[in-house]
Amino acid sequence: MADQDAQSPVGIEPPALPSIRWDEPPEGPVVVLLDQTRLPAEEVGLVCADVPALVRAIQTLAVRGAPLLGIAGAYGVALAAVRGHDVEEAAGLLERARPTAVNLGYGVRRAAAAYWMALDKGADPQRAAAVALAEAKALHREDAEASRRMARYGLALLDELLPGGGHQLLTHCNSGALVSGGEGTAFAVALRAHRAGRLRRLWVDETRPLLQGARLTAYEAARNGMAYSLLTDNAAGSLFAAGEVDAVLIGADRIAADGSVANKVGSYPLAVLAKYHHVPFIVVAPTTTVDLETADGASIIVEQRPGREVTELTSPQAGPGGEDAGGLLVAPLGAQAYNPAFDITPPELITAIVTEEGAVSPVTGVGLAELCARSSQITIS
Amino acid sequence: MADQDAQSPVGIEPPALPSIRWDEPPEGPVVVLLDQTRLPAEEVGLVCADVPALVRAIQTLAVRGAPLLGIAGAYGVALAAVRGHDVEEAAGLLERARPTAVNLGYGVRRAAAAYWMALDKGADPQRAAAVALAEAKALHREDAEASRRMARYGLALLDELLPGGGHQLLTHCNSGALVSGGEGTAFAVALRAHRAGRLRRLWVDETRPLLQGARLTAYEAARNGMAYSLLTDNAAGSLFAAGEVDAVLIGADRIAADGSVANKVGSYPLAVLAKYHHVPFIVVAPTTTVDLETADGASIIVEQRPGREVTELTSPQAGPGGEDAGGLLVAPLGAQAYNPAFDITPPELITAIVTEEGAVSPVTGVGLAELCARSSQITIS
Repeated sequence: MADQDAQSPVGIEPPALPSIRWDEPPEGPVVVLLDQTRLPAEEVGLVCADVPALVRAIQTLAVRGAPLLGIAGAYGVALAAVRGHDVEEAAGLLERARPTAVNLGYGVRRAAAAYWMALDKGADPQRAAAVALAEAKALHREDAEASRRMARYGLALLDELLPGGGHQLLTHCNSGALVSGGEGTAFAVALRAHRAGRLRRLWVDETRPLLQGARLTAYEAARNGMAYSLLTDNAAGSLFAAGEVDAVLIGADRIAADGSVANKVGSYPLAVLAKYHHVPFIVVAPTTTVDLETADGASIIVEQRPGREVTELTSPQAGPGGEDAGGLLVAPLGAQAYNPAFDITPPELITAIVTEEGAVSPVTGVGLAELCARSSQITIS
Repeated sequence: MADQDAQSPVGIEPPALPSIRWDEPPEGPVVVLLDQTRLPAEEVGLVCADVPALVRAIQTLAVRGAPLLGIAGAYGVALAAVRGHDVEEAAGLLERARPTAVNLGYGVRRAAAAYWMALDKGADPQRAAAVALAEAKALHREDAEASRRMARYGLALLDELLPGGGHQLLTHCNSGALVSGGEGTAFAVALRAHRAGRLRRLWVDETRPLLQGARLTAYEAARNGMAYSLLTDNAAGSLFAAGEVDAVLIGADRIAADGSVANKVGSYPLAVLAKYHHVPFIVVAPTTTVDLETADGASIIVEQRPGREVTELTSPQAGPGGEDAGGLLVAPLGAQAYNPAFDITPPELITAIVTEEGAVSPVTGVGLAELCARSSQITIS
């Protein structure tokens, strides 16, 4: 399969625009997002001057990925506070923007709590807003640091499970710098393996219906000069059967207390394939993705998205106005579609969950709770 | 999930154009295909006046599906013979047009053998051409009859495995009237269940990269008023996990002597999911799809198709000229893709293979050989 190797692109640099940043131009503070719906064709900054604009960006997936949604949520609360808008209403709008990613609510609540606590302690609203912003920036920094630690723990685990290097890793959806304040979750592990000379190839699932793998992960892999190949989601089975997958690395949108993982739809079939082929299936996510309030997989609410994401083909590169032009219909008029955004992988199919506090393997509720407790201690201290 | 039900389209009739037909207009004999690349938007006849045109139609998938390719191959040989072209060269071109479907070679060889045998027996080329055409027409008729028998055996098996009816069946790719001289293979079983009032729902995998499920199976399901829902291939896992799939029904492009089945890429992952969830996985194909010369799955040559089927989105409904406009690039420039057209499912993952001679379950080489022998006896007699 050597002829299917991606050439390492020459002269391509990591993205100039960060996935998210706080900015304070003369006309007032804003949150600037790298518009992920325009990638890989264009790197366009999307400027959000208020919370409704940010909520729209979250719902249209201009910004996405569990950890990054947490940061966006925190900045959103800070934005409302700094601009003197209703913070409680803003927090509610942000928290309800998408149902599955626990980090979104975490980021929102953390910045909002900092704000209310500052007010309670007698700060004026302007000072409390500065406290909320500082909290959002702290979350952003912590997330970048968590990326580095997850990558380190993840690669150590890979090297332990697969001595000898030359890893062929398969990933689904997008879990790199575009989902994070740092270099990401699952993708960051593959990137660290690449930099250490231990990545033979990254197999990139295209990830229907929204093609985050083809559009975003391939973009990040190319930017970083990694050897990668794209495939349709349903071609992964052939790679497993041919022994061409050494491990699966995915991120998570929510992890229940029992270790069940909600992630992009298509993760669960990969877990079943990995089990059948005795290939490690590794989930990489910060402890903020763990939701100890959600007992198990069955309790996770899975977002159902519009059927037309399946029945129509839309290209993000249609250019300005392309969004309004609508997609090209591929199915017969009136066709209905089943379009869950996520699926649930039970702990017995997961070899390990890697967090910034270390890995838990085998995956148990007790092991997961211990990691989370360790994380909380650090945050509190 | 009631809200995801497809409404039974009112007033939509089965396709007016047959998938393939022989015609003899004043300007000379032709093979007319229903151009499957234009469905479901347009029903356009594609007229092939010579074998190179037919080969192009096969390679661009304007005509596809194992049994139908066999009929196309036989008509192609007849076309060359009737038009006084080089029959040996035509047979070679046709047989090499696509590598995986055994039926193509079978149809070609069957019409060619009839032609050569007639010549051997002293017929002039015109008379031998008529014999080849009669043989192609016989294959066409036999295939329609085989469809009826497979549907009958298939539904009987379903009723035995799943007493009570109300079947929720999942299918992949397209295996209906568009692949056959009759109503198809796997799809014909679901259609018979529908007509018998025992189909609760047909789950239709969209089948990336060429979307035969979204374009063709959804079209056939809508035409026949079946309750169906479309899904991305990777969403099937969620349906299995939710207990919403009672059986998987797929066709086959080639079946090896040991019962290994080559079918559209994505079939194997469904077989692994079905095994994990204890759901019957049923292959429906005529005995002409069985290739006793191919010992096992590893010996089946799998066609690798161009990477741009994955890296670009193309819509068959782009209208005239749309083919030349090229696809919309979704992956970064220069992205390489792994794009096998088929995958191989080993016999231990297959509950039953249903043919026009009955079903073999469990799937064994001996059982399969017996069915094929029965079929040969009938053909010889």
